[in-house]
Amino acid sequence: MKNNDKKPTSIVVFGATGDLAKRKLFPAFFNLFLEGWLPEEFEILSLGRTEQTQEEFRNYILENIRTFSRIQKFSQEQWNNFSEKIKFIRFDITQEESFIRLKNELDTIDVNLGIRSNRLFYLSVAPSFIETVSNSLKNAGLTENVDQDRMIIEKPFGYDKASAVALNKLLSQTFKEEQIYRIDHYLGKENVQNILAFRFGNTIFEPLWNNNYIDSVQITVAETVGVEDRGGYYDGSGALRDMIQNHLMQILCMIAMEAPAAFESSEIRDRKVDVLKSVRRINLEDIGHYTVRAQYTEGEIDGKKKAGYLEEPGVNPNSNTETYVAMKFYIDNERWRGVPFYMRTGKRMQEKKSSIVISFKDVPCTTFRDDLNMLFPNKLVINIQPEMDVRLSFMTKKPGLDMKLKPAEMVFDYFECSSETPEAYETLLLDALDGDSTLFMRSDQVEEAWDVISNIQTAWESGNSPKMDTYAAGSAGPAAADDLLKR
Amino acid sequence: MKNNDKKPTSIVVFGATGDLAKRKLFPAFFNLFLEGWLPEEFEILSLGRTEQTQEEFRNYILENIRTFSRIQKFSQEQWNNFSEKIKFIRFDITQEESFIRLKNELDTIDVNLGIRSNRLFYLSVAPSFIETVSNSLKNAGLTENVDQDRMIIEKPFGYDKASAVALNKLLSQTFKEEQIYRIDHYLGKENVQNILAFRFGNTIFEPLWNNNYIDSVQITVAETVGVEDRGGYYDGSGALRDMIQNHLMQILCMIAMEAPAAFESSEIRDRKVDVLKSVRRINLEDIGHYTVRAQYTEGEIDGKKKAGYLEEPGVNPNSNTETYVAMKFYIDNERWRGVPFYMRTGKRMQEKKSSIVISFKDVPCTTFRDDLNMLFPNKLVINIQPEMDVRLSFMTKKPGLDMKLKPAEMVFDYFECSSETPEAYETLLLDALDGDSTLFMRSDQVEEAWDVISNIQTAWESGNSPKMDTYAAGSAGPAAADDLLKR
Repeated sequence: MKNNDKKPTSIVVFGATGDLAKRKLFPAFFNLFLEGWLPEEFEILSLGRTEQTQEEFRNYILENIRTFSRIQKFSQEQWNNFSEKIKFIRFDITQEESFIRLKNELDTIDVNLGIRSNRLFYLSVAPSFIETVSNSLKNAGLTENVDQDRMIIEKPFGYDKASAVALNKLLSQTFKEEQIYRIDHYLGKENVQNILAFRFGNTIFEPLWNNNYIDSVQITVAETVGVEDRGGYYDGSGALRDMIQNHLMQILCMIAMEAPAAFESSEIRDRKVDVLKSVRRINLEDIGHYTVRAQYTEGEIDGKKKAGYLEEPGVNPNSNTETYVAMKFYIDNERWRGVPFYMRTGKRMQEKKSSIVISFKDVPCTTFRDDLNMLFPNKLVINIQPEMDVRLSFMTKKPGLDMKLKPAEMVFDYFECSSETPEAYETLLLDALDGDSTLFMRSDQVEEAWDVISNIQTAWESGNSPKMDTYAAGSAGPAAADDLLKR
Repeated sequence: MKNNDKKPTSIVVFGATGDLAKRKLFPAFFNLFLEGWLPEEFEILSLGRTEQTQEEFRNYILENIRTFSRIQKFSQEQWNNFSEKIKFIRFDITQEESFIRLKNELDTIDVNLGIRSNRLFYLSVAPSFIETVSNSLKNAGLTENVDQDRMIIEKPFGYDKASAVALNKLLSQTFKEEQIYRIDHYLGKENVQNILAFRFGNTIFEPLWNNNYIDSVQITVAETVGVEDRGGYYDGSGALRDMIQNHLMQILCMIAMEAPAAFESSEIRDRKVDVLKSVRRINLEDIGHYTVRAQYTEGEIDGKKKAGYLEEPGVNPNSNTETYVAMKFYIDNERWRGVPFYMRTGKRMQEKKSSIVISFKDVPCTTFRDDLNMLFPNKLVINIQPEMDVRLSFMTKKPGLDMKLKPAEMVFDYFECSSETPEAYETLLLDALDGDSTLFMRSDQVEEAWDVISNIQTAWESGNSPKMDTYAAGSAGPAAADDLLKR
């Protein structure tokens, strides 16, 4: 749906001077604008605490675009046309009267347009402000049009199941569920979206996609970054909450879900929740068997010395927060009975890599009996980042005079198709503008994902089991994680 | 098995000055020699009608090697070492006494070696001489050691079922079945051998390899050459006999066979015969429905004018011999019930191409309902020549902001593994030297393949149906063949 079909929209960014807005949101809006995806008539009301002129703010945005935008080739005229839609508003979230002024701004826009515009509120604020913003939006009567008014919210969605339920309840007092767009930017990544195309747009993968043929599934999200300047926040969260509960669970859902009868938001989200409901909960006493947690210690990445987690600014020197998690799950349904799903994520790892590895079972037939030791099981690897490709490894005849087999690989490089792949945030912002919630998380999904890790949280917080492992920054993670895979 | 494990071998080439020996056999022996596959002690007794000195013959072989050999980098010393093993013997096939002299030569070799050498007789002679050679070998007592003496024979193996049975019976008076190596050089091609590695060395293809998932199979062997200087021979044969009965049937067997319990000659050949036995015989009255035959007419290939088949030297101007065949088969077993197998072969086609296309069924699921018209069924293409690769086509998400699908391809290029892929004849000669008959055709296989096309031969020869179509040299074949595929 290109711009000329779209209703005028007022976009309201809470936290417009924050890090996310700077790196992701404004570049994404600008790229959508350049490629003709934004409505003909739109306005970006940019709310921030600091006093500045329109010109100062617009120059700041332009500077960030020059640094972070995917598209760097644009004319002065294009920038002018975009920037005149940006209006900076000094805003104090804690003051109800700020919201009254916001309402006046929005009403004025609508009066000038001669039509009630759609409203998209982007809550790029700290979790502690969500309640205030949500309530004040309600009190100011800003979000009453269910079909037109939407809200995007960033993780964390709570810090355990109870708080997630509470947060959802709170939001539900201002918004109906269909107005709420919970963003997990992993779902906007091209090769994550491609999982569904791959599985359900082809006949040849789905027949293999079950416990008859699949031996195990590994989902890995490894980062080289540490906690950076978010030490304070991170120390109250940890890898289980910050990564497993959302990104990795979402990927798990896409890999494991049943076929949605249609590519529709409710269908797809129903099938995802089904997966989470089927994930076997780990008993409290078994947590040590199924999970590994660890903190990075001092080490080196690319020849540069990196501090250990406990020495990071903002981190409690006695912190019990994990920066690495490895775990094993089972999904108790017909399709996945007995197939282990391994999840791993960590900061300060030796390389940045997000990937899904589907390992198939051994060859059952004895045709190549003599080579059995040399027959590697088939593997399908879906790389999400930094590479974006799909790799199928299989055995082939080694060229030569006798019948020996060797492993080979077929690669589909996603980037071959287009060097102009949109950023995850572009996809997701556009979907929210269009009212398509397929790639966003529904309340029940969020709560169910918390439920899955609930016992792990309990066990870890009681400090019992497993013990906190360590791994050197720049390493492949703790040895205990390898043991988990072998078990 | 490299040379130092091998018994001394006396190779006897009947037809050593013929075209096959010149282009294929001697280059293949030389390449095997260079790469250390021949026995330490061997001799190539080269039988021909023309009077010439050893030096003349060896120079003739060297010249051919310079033109036709895969390996061109070798030293004078290597050539000397090889060429001194070649002994030209003037030979008249029709004279029993020639065979007596041959026996003396072979006995002398054995006396000098102090051991009875293995013997490999390569019958590169016209079909009309097979009987004489076979009988004379027997009479001279040259092939009595079943474990040591082998014979390689080239197609044609008869010209219909009755003559094939007769030929097999004739040969059986001199050789036991395990001594007879019926060569179909297609079976020596790397990517044909790779079919079995691909199917049975992996878990992910075999579950899809049946009528639940496969819609159709197409086997194509298209040549750009015409009948060249073989017009006389070809006109008595035709594409059905010359290509379908052997090359294409062999490929069919490898694609359709059940898994052999072991990679052993008898296992594999049993499973191939099973396929041929299960091929549904076409009723005489249905031949016109299931087959298309055609002759090429004048046309152009690569800008060069080419004569029509009826104008070729050696061809009867009223010939009823086909240079093109397209046909449709069913295999009546559980695996293949209802899956059509299409075979096509022709001379003077627009491009040289041998390939197998496995077309999978449509996507059954409605996830991408809106895109259904855009969803192309998956296809697995195994190219045999001139390209040697495996291509898997599938649907993927089109990179971009909405969920649209597009076809993409994963390619495994067989040549990436090695630029030094052996020629089919090297593989097959080595196997025969080693006593491995896996890639050779057993008598029952040959007879069964004739049986499959028996009704077609009868119908065509009666001249009833279908009519002889035509296609211009350099074209894609007759339109009727496209209709056959559509039906």
